[in-house]
Amino acid sequence: MTISMVFRANSINHTPSFPNPTKTHFLSPQNLLHFYKKTPLKNHIGEFSCSSPGPVVVGLAADSGCGKTTFMKRLTSVFGGAPKADHNHQNPDSNTLITDTTTVICLDDYHLLDRKERKEKGVTALHPRANNFDLMFEQIEALKHGFPIEKPIYNHATGLLDPPELIHPPKILVLEGLHPLYDSRVRDLLDFSIYLDISNEVKFSWKIQRDMAERGHSLESVRASIKARKSDFDAYIEPQKQYASVVMEVLPTQLIPDDTERKVLRVRLIMKESGVKNFQPIYIFDEGSTISWVPCGRKLTCSYPGIKFFCGPEAYFENEVTVLEMDGEFDKLEELVYVEGHLCNVSTKFYGEVTQQMLKNCDFEGSNNGTGFFQTLIALKIRDLYEQVAMSNGVGDGVGVGSLASTK
Amino acid sequence: MTISMVFRANSINHTPSFPNPTKTHFLSPQNLLHFYKKTPLKNHIGEFSCSSPGPVVVGLAADSGCGKTTFMKRLTSVFGGAPKADHNHQNPDSNTLITDTTTVICLDDYHLLDRKERKEKGVTALHPRANNFDLMFEQIEALKHGFPIEKPIYNHATGLLDPPELIHPPKILVLEGLHPLYDSRVRDLLDFSIYLDISNEVKFSWKIQRDMAERGHSLESVRASIKARKSDFDAYIEPQKQYASVVMEVLPTQLIPDDTERKVLRVRLIMKESGVKNFQPIYIFDEGSTISWVPCGRKLTCSYPGIKFFCGPEAYFENEVTVLEMDGEFDKLEELVYVEGHLCNVSTKFYGEVTQQMLKNCDFEGSNNGTGFFQTLIALKIRDLYEQVAMSNGVGDGVGVGSLASTK
Repeated sequence: MTISMVFRANSINHTPSFPNPTKTHFLSPQNLLHFYKKTPLKNHIGEFSCSSPGPVVVGLAADSGCGKTTFMKRLTSVFGGAPKADHNHQNPDSNTLITDTTTVICLDDYHLLDRKERKEKGVTALHPRANNFDLMFEQIEALKHGFPIEKPIYNHATGLLDPPELIHPPKILVLEGLHPLYDSRVRDLLDFSIYLDISNEVKFSWKIQRDMAERGHSLESVRASIKARKSDFDAYIEPQKQYASVVMEVLPTQLIPDDTERKVLRVRLIMKESGVKNFQPIYIFDEGSTISWVPCGRKLTCSYPGIKFFCGPEAYFENEVTVLEMDGEFDKLEELVYVEGHLCNVSTKFYGEVTQQMLKNCDFEGSNNGTGFFQTLIALKIRDLYEQVAMSNGVGDGVGVGSLASTK
Repeated sequence: MTISMVFRANSINHTPSFPNPTKTHFLSPQNLLHFYKKTPLKNHIGEFSCSSPGPVVVGLAADSGCGKTTFMKRLTSVFGGAPKADHNHQNPDSNTLITDTTTVICLDDYHLLDRKERKEKGVTALHPRANNFDLMFEQIEALKHGFPIEKPIYNHATGLLDPPELIHPPKILVLEGLHPLYDSRVRDLLDFSIYLDISNEVKFSWKIQRDMAERGHSLESVRASIKARKSDFDAYIEPQKQYASVVMEVLPTQLIPDDTERKVLRVRLIMKESGVKNFQPIYIFDEGSTISWVPCGRKLTCSYPGIKFFCGPEAYFENEVTVLEMDGEFDKLEELVYVEGHLCNVSTKFYGEVTQQMLKNCDFEGSNNGTGFFQTLIALKIRDLYEQVAMSNGVGDGVGVGSLASTK
């Protein structure tokens, strides 16, 4: 453990003077003294103890309205910590979700332009020009190295940039938003990343549900909004999926011929086979083989249209991946437990943990289909990855990252 | 054990007189004194010791040229006994195959009409009228109860009925031919039965291979022969498959679009799920589910067109069956061992026994595809069934059936 005095430098060339140099160490990259060029943090933010390992950093990339919030709820549920109720008392419009273990930062907070400015300049929020990647990188790097940051807030209600909020380094840091994998510097900070790839048919039906039913928009305005975003989405958001550790594709079912209802979904989990440290793909029955599996049969009966799984090796953007696919919906618990029992490389701590998690959060969106099921599987994978990192750093479950001991 | 004196009765109403009644016992059905109405056995055939259990009786139904001989070679190979060379010295045209454990009787020996008579009466060998089911039943029943028989011989070379041969009850009795499942009395004597169901496309290509290449027939005569047999085949042979414990379907491959070569085969093993004592269907990965499996992938590479397995529950003539299917060909040993390792309910005695058997008999027809593979699997199943029967009868492997101790 290192005791550090942390200062904010006013410029990159600033030479700091240390009140007690004998207490300051410049050791590993994890314990670097950081110079915050842009963060409006007070000069001397405190004296804090910092264990070597910083947070495990997870990126979650997706368009808006694609289920990121539900995913985050499942992830924090796996880690067990309750949301900290007092965090947002300064700004109720903060986008940050904080639990005992996990902090989820919304990357919209790094918007460089507010809503009005974007409108004036004709730039969508999807365009890199509307986002401050330098600050994003600096702040995520600081958190990763165990330092607190003062992160801006993009107020979704007003469309304005609100005063910043203080964020301490958590055990698990999740960056959710449009561009967690866009900037290579930010990308290199990630231990694990997910891209939610919602097919156009499904996205349209989801947006209609959310924007029309819940927000009172018209069908035309939903269509127009999707159309307006399309070219920037294709140019700046979608290409990120090649970098993700796992991609979750959500597609129309193939079990119902000519389905237009889009209620039953076919979900594909595309998992990189190598290059992701502390992560092994999930498979069914036999690793490396191509398998399709209809669990409904003699021992399990399912109602129409049933459930179909697929698993096999594929190529994805020149990467070798394992694809796990589920088409259909669960009717009842037995189906889920039955399926769970046949998955391999699932990072559960006991038999039936996936099912237990799904039951606990059964009121979450997608609990009866592959979206909820695979979100839960990924959440367990992230917990496992975190524990492997913590183990290799020689720190137990409860002491992953140093805590701030303010001098004030 | 019972010591019996066995006599042939000249008619069903014949009252036998016993030279030493105190030595003759009329006990269980297994030890019944038998009256052979038609078997031209000498009156007093001997005094013999007879353990309670008779042979396990297996029926193998198929059209001619459908691989019965290869199947039988694989079966006897599993039981390990060498063919008895001296059996056929009396009639080299005997159709019976005898090893230490197994006797394979060809049901053509129960032809009622010889070739000339069939021609005169316009009856094919497939028609029940051309076959003596009463004698078939009587003799199989006698063998099953541990008694020797004198079985007629149909001489395939001459087309005539030759003088009978003496057949002792073996441990495993196999009835191979056109009609092992036709007569309900014979059917009821079977412990296990197999129907080889060769699709018309494949059968035609096999017959051309055998009858043209090996026997010098013309294409027209092959076609004419198939056509001539078709209506009797459909009426009297094919319906037997509903009664079989397992049906082995041989079909054109689905891996090569528009394949006309018929070299690569798709083979389906249709196994009854209930009603067959001492037999459990083989499956892959998960019993009762529907699974397709392409083992070729990351861990196993196969050349074009690869190998595809399928397994799942189906209905077959109102019976619940498990279907195991293999499409494609094995390139090399690793593929076979790899597949064997993933089969469940295979009745092997050690890991790799199926592969070992296949290697031992690699020069047999169909060793690189599902026909040879499934024949071997069935042979092991029959061995297992035999051992279960022997076990439940309280007799060890080596003492299944009583041996004849001639008084002469």
